[in-house]
Amino acid sequence: MQPDTTPKFEALSEFATPEERLAALGIELPPVPGAVGDYAPWVITGNLLMTSGQLPWIDGDMKFVGKVGSDLTVEQGYQSFRLSALNVIAQLKSAVGSLSRIRRIVRLEGSINCAPGFTDQASALNGASHMINQAFGKKGLHTRMIYSDPDMVLTCATLVSVYAEV
Amino acid sequence: MQPDTTPKFEALSEFATPEERLAALGIELPPVPGAVGDYAPWVITGNLLMTSGQLPWIDGDMKFVGKVGSDLTVEQGYQSFRLSALNVIAQLKSAVGSLSRIRRIVRLEGSINCAPGFTDQASALNGASHMINQAFGKKGLHTRMIYSDPDMVLTCATLVSVYAEV
Amino acid sequence: MQPDTTPKFEALSEFATPEERLAALGIELPPVPGAVGDYAPWVITGNLLMTSGQLPWIDGDMKFVGKVGSDLTVEQGYQSFRLSALNVIAQLKSAVGSLSRIRRIVRLEGSINCAPGFTDQASALNGASHMINQAFGKKGLHTRMIYSDPDMVLTCATLVSVYAEV
Repeated sequence: MQPDTTPKFEALSEFATPEERLAALGIELPPVPGAVGDYAPWVITGNLLMTSGQLPWIDGDMKFVGKVGSDLTVEQGYQSFRLSALNVIAQLKSAVGSLSRIRRIVRLEGSINCAPGFTDQASALNGASHMINQAFGKKGLHTRMIYSDPDMVLTCATLVSVYAEV
Repeated sequence: MQPDTTPKFEALSEFATPEERLAALGIELPPVPGAVGDYAPWVITGNLLMTSGQLPWIDGDMKFVGKVGSDLTVEQGYQSFRLSALNVIAQLKSAVGSLSRIRRIVRLEGSINCAPGFTDQASALNGASHMINQAFGKKGLHTRMIYSDPDMVLTCATLVSVYAEV
Repeated sequence: MQPDTTPKFEALSEFATPEERLAALGIELPPVPGAVGDYAPWVITGNLLMTSGQLPWIDGDMKFVGKVGSDLTVEQGYQSFRLSALNVIAQLKSAVGSLSRIRRIVRLEGSINCAPGFTDQASALNGASHMINQAFGKKGLHTRMIYSDPDMVLTCATLVSVYAEV
């Protein structure tokens, strides 16, 4: 049985840094993933920091492959979105050094590799939203848009990109 | 035979508010839809107001379900996009109180649930563009991007999100 | 055998304008494509210039039709993305007159019409990234997001939209 980290998490002040919030959840940021093409993982323009699409992998090892609704369950889709969002957070930290420099997350765009007839995209995408909300607290509340894809880069299950205000 | 509302609409000054323009068209804003997940329906960052993806429903009742090109005609796809865009406008009003506070609409992103071989995405998406243009007049002229999806959240036919300058 | 234009290109100073860089590559900007619906090809809001989705056509003649991975090879998908991106550049120039007024490209969003099981979206999308990088040099380094679509507007193979800082 896994220890319940929720009480520890809820005991955190709303002024806790994202790094403290992640640590309280026992979550370690993965190494910053490289780009899968000739582009930048993040860019800052004005007060807007945006990331490229992030895959559900750790250190080059793809953790969630295939279609949600056939190859993968909704719960696995949720976990895949969670990992994609964790890689987004690693990119944000790489961009600004300390995650406290992020004023707020303003937008999350998710794309899901799903089987014909699958309609629970929203529950799966909550994995990304929850990861962002847990790390950034009230500053994590974001708009979002979901896209369903019949196929994906490297057969991965989910892609997430984020816009943050800095 | 339906009364023709066009003359009334065209008689409107270009200084008419979006609310006056909608009223002249006999269009009532639907109740502001809640989020289908743990996110915000809209966010303002700097001078940019962005909405989350909006579905073609009224008060929780999904009006357009299925794939454009098989389950639904292009005209129904047009109407579905129109309703998604009307929900966007309801969100914008909820964000700023009076729609006159919107300086202009800058971008519309639409996603359409469509049948294999369907290629008239642009005509369907015009439903969203026309709704925005009718409500905002010259301030409604926007860029747009269209995505075709093989499946959608809650089997809905269309999703629309908008960026506005405030 | 085609003449190798690479040396000429590499000999360009990093201060060369995008127009000079394109000329050195022997690339001519296509006529600015019109919109495929009731929207604007580009909009400037604050310091952000954004384009609508651009198709792989020249003067109304669609050059790449069908699905990458079945109708088209990855190389053709690469060329299709390259042409979509070239049309983006034509729109940017139409917006600002001289491409030197673009401070940098910050984001590229691509959508690809692909066959079931296709997983090399990233290699194809590099066609768009390379076009942008070749035209803008260091100012071209961008974030990007890729979407796979089962069908596309006018059966085209690729769509690209770009955000630039002005």
